[in-house]
Amino acid sequence: MDIAVVCTGTELLKGYTLNSNLARLGARLTAEGLPLSLELCVGDRAHEIGNAIALALKTCDVLILCGGLGPTKDDITLDVAARFFGCDLETDPELVRKVTDFWDRIHTGHCPKNQLRQARVPAGGHYLSNPVGSASGLAFSSLYGGRMRYVYLLPGPPTEFVPMMENYLVPELLELDAKRRFTLGFLAAAVGESTLAKAVEPVLEGLPVEIAYTAVPEGTKLFLEASDEELLASAVEKARAAVGKDALPAGAADLYAYLVSLLKERGLTFGTAESCTGGLIGKIMTDMPGVSEVYNGTVVAYANSVKERVLSIPREVLERAGAVSEETAALMAQHAAEVLGCSCAVSTTGIAGPDGGTEEKPVGLVYVGCFLNGRTTVLKLNLRGGREAIRQRAAARAVYQLVCRILEAYA
Amino acid sequence: MDIAVVCTGTELLKGYTLNSNLARLGARLTAEGLPLSLELCVGDRAHEIGNAIALALKTCDVLILCGGLGPTKDDITLDVAARFFGCDLETDPELVRKVTDFWDRIHTGHCPKNQLRQARVPAGGHYLSNPVGSASGLAFSSLYGGRMRYVYLLPGPPTEFVPMMENYLVPELLELDAKRRFTLGFLAAAVGESTLAKAVEPVLEGLPVEIAYTAVPEGTKLFLEASDEELLASAVEKARAAVGKDALPAGAADLYAYLVSLLKERGLTFGTAESCTGGLIGKIMTDMPGVSEVYNGTVVAYANSVKERVLSIPREVLERAGAVSEETAALMAQHAAEVLGCSCAVSTTGIAGPDGGTEEKPVGLVYVGCFLNGRTTVLKLNLRGGREAIRQRAAARAVYQLVCRILEAYA
Repeated sequence: MDIAVVCTGTELLKGYTLNSNLARLGARLTAEGLPLSLELCVGDRAHEIGNAIALALKTCDVLILCGGLGPTKDDITLDVAARFFGCDLETDPELVRKVTDFWDRIHTGHCPKNQLRQARVPAGGHYLSNPVGSASGLAFSSLYGGRMRYVYLLPGPPTEFVPMMENYLVPELLELDAKRRFTLGFLAAAVGESTLAKAVEPVLEGLPVEIAYTAVPEGTKLFLEASDEELLASAVEKARAAVGKDALPAGAADLYAYLVSLLKERGLTFGTAESCTGGLIGKIMTDMPGVSEVYNGTVVAYANSVKERVLSIPREVLERAGAVSEETAALMAQHAAEVLGCSCAVSTTGIAGPDGGTEEKPVGLVYVGCFLNGRTTVLKLNLRGGREAIRQRAAARAVYQLVCRILEAYA
Repeated sequence: MDIAVVCTGTELLKGYTLNSNLARLGARLTAEGLPLSLELCVGDRAHEIGNAIALALKTCDVLILCGGLGPTKDDITLDVAARFFGCDLETDPELVRKVTDFWDRIHTGHCPKNQLRQARVPAGGHYLSNPVGSASGLAFSSLYGGRMRYVYLLPGPPTEFVPMMENYLVPELLELDAKRRFTLGFLAAAVGESTLAKAVEPVLEGLPVEIAYTAVPEGTKLFLEASDEELLASAVEKARAAVGKDALPAGAADLYAYLVSLLKERGLTFGTAESCTGGLIGKIMTDMPGVSEVYNGTVVAYANSVKERVLSIPREVLERAGAVSEETAALMAQHAAEVLGCSCAVSTTGIAGPDGGTEEKPVGLVYVGCFLNGRTTVLKLNLRGGREAIRQRAAARAVYQLVCRILEAYA
């Protein structure tokens, strides 16, 4: 029973919005052993949505439609899906009350008629409550092409999609009792794709697992997929052994989350002094809930004046060695730990481009510093790629430097 | 001549990687008047990729395949596409040299045979140079279903995809001479989708433009699409007038980029003191190249000790009013401007959740401060949604507060 998701929304195809729902849904279903087989993304036009539904049903029996349940003119997903499957739409009195109550809480004046389009449910189906917004999700099943198909409609805004996926979609999919396939992997930190493949493929040869690689700024992620969970775990351990010390533990595919787990285990607190990464490390750290016990804060010292004032980098150092130098990176890490009152800190300073490079200090030159237990270390990096790639790699290498030092110090 | 993109990669469906290539490609093609009609995403299996190509060609004549050009076992896109269209693959001597040179620059030892799979070109086609990586792009055309189809293959890593899209794909697509459709829009800052629709739909009624709304943490974006550029511009102005003062200028759909343009025009410098947003504003600011003249830096004061030490918030205030209070937010903004040496600053402090809320200070309570021209203002917000939504909305409202104050002060 393969699962397809159809994302509707001109904004996704025009590139105004990143399709984060796909990533959230994909990760969640993979964790449950029910990986997605296909995703389609189309605009908000009826014939495009209908066409996408037909394409998805060629290979999949479970269809998740995401987006287009709002009250505006371009919200037509429910109408198209109902017409496609020949379902009647019935106005649900309970939903009428929900929609009206929601309107009254936010607006003044009478709830307009077009809002009540959100109170319709396909005959024989049921609605899924929206804890945040006005649009309910919808679920129904229908025969199509001689097979039973299971259809779920969810609103597009991630703040509504994600809780509804957790509360209703995933539990209902698990009850469909499809054959499960499991995935487990790890990050090979600072290891390239070719190098990783060369290390792991000989030891995985002949095992009934599917291998997938993903090159990321932090290194390369390896994921194995299999229908047997025990066999999968042992294959992952074989692959980890083949990689050696740069292999994070099984299941640890996220370098930053792994750092948080190390900090918590060792009772360390962490802070950053960021120049070329401009707050990226701080942003990623605080994307994760529950980090306040280990993460103190960041100083984004983009301007030299901030390096001087907040991080006490002597002007003499900035003038002699320069803002992008080993000496500055070391002082930034050390002083960040002092200023932010934390037991370890990393720093980044470099030329992220596209402008600002010189012959002596080209675009991609980055120093990342690391302070732990009274000792500061600095790595000099020559990173390739555009501005984004350089910033992401610099952040990752700074954090991986700290990860290695924590593992060494507390082995 | 409709355009489809097929993204291959198990990592996209498993949610390990956000599909940023789709967003970059979509935005770029929209800017050229050649919007994407369809996107499909499938895993790295031959039958899935072949199936996706067949589905895309049902409605589209231009096919962009993204990903799966690497040297590892799961990189099979070229083989599948060549088989699908019945094209022979020929080894190109120039590419053999490129691939070997690339290998030699990074690795020691002889270039392994599997790398030379990246030296193959479909008969009658040509390759697209990769300025960063080892995998070249490929282009060819082929009759299928009685029509000429144009096929482009590009590598998946964004650092390779984006420059190759700019350098080769977009110029080649523009030469295909398809009918163009143009898009123009703006952000209605802090305006909800229903409210925006109610304002603009009466004035756009009957005009030959397509309307699309996108709810974002900053408000709602409105995009109009039409085949006539002049008519499009006048329709956008009508919509802006209907929205009033919260409508950003035509073309300004990004609140943060608009702030940068205002800061540059007025010669202002900017900094932030972030608690609950944890560096999000700094990260978004420095995602944009060329901001160093207006953006000084950020203090991420996640811990109270950092609020005291770096931002000089008196302990008495933190104990009496609390870290999440109007008084703290005001002092954070004012002291950030001093510490960071900038002419204006914003601050955020609040309860992003999911834990940490109390009856008096529930999850979603956020104060955002703004310092400009010696005067500090603070907004108290009660934001709905999960942790991410609250952080993004808090960041947006902080920045919009500053935008409004700059527009007032320098009217």
